[in-house]
Amino acid sequence: MINPIRIAVDAMGGENSPYKVIKALEIHKKTNKNIFYNIYGNKTLIDPIINKTSLSKTDYKIFHTQNFIKDTDSPLSAAKKGKDTSMWLSIESIKNGESDVIISAGNTGALFVIAKLNLKMIDKIDKPALSALWPNKNGMNIVLDLGANIECNEKNLIDFSFMGSALHKSLFENEEPKVALLNIGSEELKGNITIKNTYQSLTESKNSLFKFCGYIEGNHIMDGDVNVIVTDGFTGNIALKTAEGTANFITSELKSALSSSILGKLSSILNYKNLLKFKKKLDPRLYNGAILLGLDKPVIKSHGSTDELGFANSLSVCEKIVNGNLIQKIKKNIV
Amino acid sequence: MINPIRIAVDAMGGENSPYKVIKALEIHKKTNKNIFYNIYGNKTLIDPIINKTSLSKTDYKIFHTQNFIKDTDSPLSAAKKGKDTSMWLSIESIKNGESDVIISAGNTGALFVIAKLNLKMIDKIDKPALSALWPNKNGMNIVLDLGANIECNEKNLIDFSFMGSALHKSLFENEEPKVALLNIGSEELKGNITIKNTYQSLTESKNSLFKFCGYIEGNHIMDGDVNVIVTDGFTGNIALKTAEGTANFITSELKSALSSSILGKLSSILNYKNLLKFKKKLDPRLYNGAILLGLDKPVIKSHGSTDELGFANSLSVCEKIVNGNLIQKIKKNIV
Repeated sequence: MINPIRIAVDAMGGENSPYKVIKALEIHKKTNKNIFYNIYGNKTLIDPIINKTSLSKTDYKIFHTQNFIKDTDSPLSAAKKGKDTSMWLSIESIKNGESDVIISAGNTGALFVIAKLNLKMIDKIDKPALSALWPNKNGMNIVLDLGANIECNEKNLIDFSFMGSALHKSLFENEEPKVALLNIGSEELKGNITIKNTYQSLTESKNSLFKFCGYIEGNHIMDGDVNVIVTDGFTGNIALKTAEGTANFITSELKSALSSSILGKLSSILNYKNLLKFKKKLDPRLYNGAILLGLDKPVIKSHGSTDELGFANSLSVCEKIVNGNLIQKIKKNIV
Repeated sequence: MINPIRIAVDAMGGENSPYKVIKALEIHKKTNKNIFYNIYGNKTLIDPIINKTSLSKTDYKIFHTQNFIKDTDSPLSAAKKGKDTSMWLSIESIKNGESDVIISAGNTGALFVIAKLNLKMIDKIDKPALSALWPNKNGMNIVLDLGANIECNEKNLIDFSFMGSALHKSLFENEEPKVALLNIGSEELKGNITIKNTYQSLTESKNSLFKFCGYIEGNHIMDGDVNVIVTDGFTGNIALKTAEGTANFITSELKSALSSSILGKLSSILNYKNLLKFKKKLDPRLYNGAILLGLDKPVIKSHGSTDELGFANSLSVCEKIVNGNLIQKIKKNIV
C-alpha cells in the first residue's frame, strides 16, 4: 500500500464545529480509504463525537489544544495569540512535514496571516492568491484572486494564471486549462493598463500548461468556454459574492412562486425529483472551499457556514490537490 | 392640458430597429397620453411600420436621416461621422430644447461620446456615470457607475451617491434613497484608500437627499436594505454582468431540469402560471435602460438586444425622469 495522504484538520473553525468537522471526516473516509487525519482541537469536545462515528482509531490522531481562533479575532490578534491554537498547530503540521495539506473552516484573515507567517512562498511568486471553484455549463472554473490582494500588478496576474491553471490541472487532469482575464469589454481596447499589459504578455508567452483565451466579461464566466478566470482580489471578491447573491435571490423567488398556490404546491411535489436535481446541481456545498495558492504547501479554507457535507467536499479537494501534485505543478511551470 | 413630455427617439439603434422602436412607441403611448415623440431615423423604413400602428400623426414627428451609427463603430469614428446620424440629431434635439429627454438603443460608447460632445456637464460634477435599475427583494436598486469610468476618485464616488439618489427619488418618489458603497468587507477596515475616504466623507456629510448606510458586499446587493449602490465603472460593470450571467445560468439549468422527464413537463404545465409569475418578476426587460447621469440633460440608453416591450419600459423611465425633475434634483443637491 502506498503511503496515505495526511490531512491536517483544524477541527475548531467555523459554525457548529467540531461536530461538523468530525462528521465530515466520517463521510469523507467512506469513499477515500488511503487517508490519515491529523486532527487539531479540543479533545474533550472531539472524543464523544468521534467515538460515535464509523472512524477507526487507526484513521486519525487527535492533537489536543485548548485554544482556538474566533471568527471575531482580527488577523493580527489571531497571529499574536495564535501559537497554541488549533489553526496555528495544524499549519505547523504541514510546515514540519507531518501532514501533506491543511484544511480549516475558521477565520479567513487569520488563516491567511498564520499561513504566511509559517510557510514559505514558492520561489518567484510575489503574492499568494485565494482561489475557488465556480460552476460553468461544461464543468468547473477556477477563479482567482478572491480577496487576498486588493491591488495586483501585471506580474501578479500572470502568476495567478499559472497557479490557477496548475490547480485546475490537479483537480481535473483530463482537461486543458483555458485562461481568461476578467474585464469589462471583450475588445482589446477596454480595461485598465495593468490588464492590457497582462493581456499582451500572456498573448506572447508560450507555455505548455494552459491556453490563453483573452478577455472575458462577467456575463460569460459560466459559459464554459474557459475554465480559469484571473482577476485582482477586489474584483474577484465582488464578482463571486454578486453571483452568490443573485443565485440566492432567484432561488428564493422561485420557491415563493412555486408555493404561492395549492396547484403550485401540488405540481412542485410532482416535480420534486427534477427540482431536487436542479437544487443539487447548484448546491453551494459542491463548490465549497477556497484554495490559498502561492505558498509552498497547500492550504484549504472551507466556508465557515457550510455543513458536514460541504466540509467533506473540501476534504476531497485536499486529497485531489495532493494526488495531483499541485505544488510541484506550480513550481515546474512558474516563470 | 399641461405641455406634453417630448422624447427624442433614436429609431435606428440596436437589434431589429427601427421596427422594435416604433412598436415600443405604440405600446408606450397606450398608457401614457401626454407624450410627444421626436423620431430620428430613416423615414423610408419608419413610415411603413408606423402607419400600421395605432399612433396618430399628432403623437410624433419624424426627422429623416439617411445615416446611423453602427454597433461596430468605435466611439471616435462614430463621433467623426456622426453629425447627420439619427443618434447625433436626437441628442441635438435635447441640446436645442426641442426635446426633454433622449433615448437610444444604439452603440453605448458612441452615445456616451456624442452626448459628452454636445451637452454640458452639471456644474461641480467632474465625471458622468452610467446607472441602471437592478431588482432587490423590496423594490429596485439604482447601481452606478456601470462602465463610464474605469477609475474613480473620492469626489466622483460622492457625486455618484448624490446623482444615484436623485435618480432613485425621481423614479420612486415615496421612497428614501439609501446609499451604500460596494466593497469587499462590511468592516470599515477593508477596501482601498479611495473607498475608505469616501466612506469617511459620506459618514460626516449631512444632506437631506439620502441616508448613507456604509459598505455593502456583492451578496447583499439584492437584499433590499439599501437602494443606491455606488462603485467605480470597472467593478460595477463586472458585478452587473456577473449577476446577468448567473441569472441566465440558473434559469437555463432550471428549464432543463423541469423538462427532463414527462412527469416534469406535465407538472410544469400545471405550474405554468406560477412559473410565468416567476419569469415575469425576473424579466430583464423590466429593468431595461441605463441612465447617463452628470450631463445637464437626461440621456437614456436602452439595451441593444431588448425587444419592443423592453424599449417601451425604457420610455417609461424617460417619462418618469422628466416628471421627477431629475436634473433639477441633482443640481439642487450637489455639493
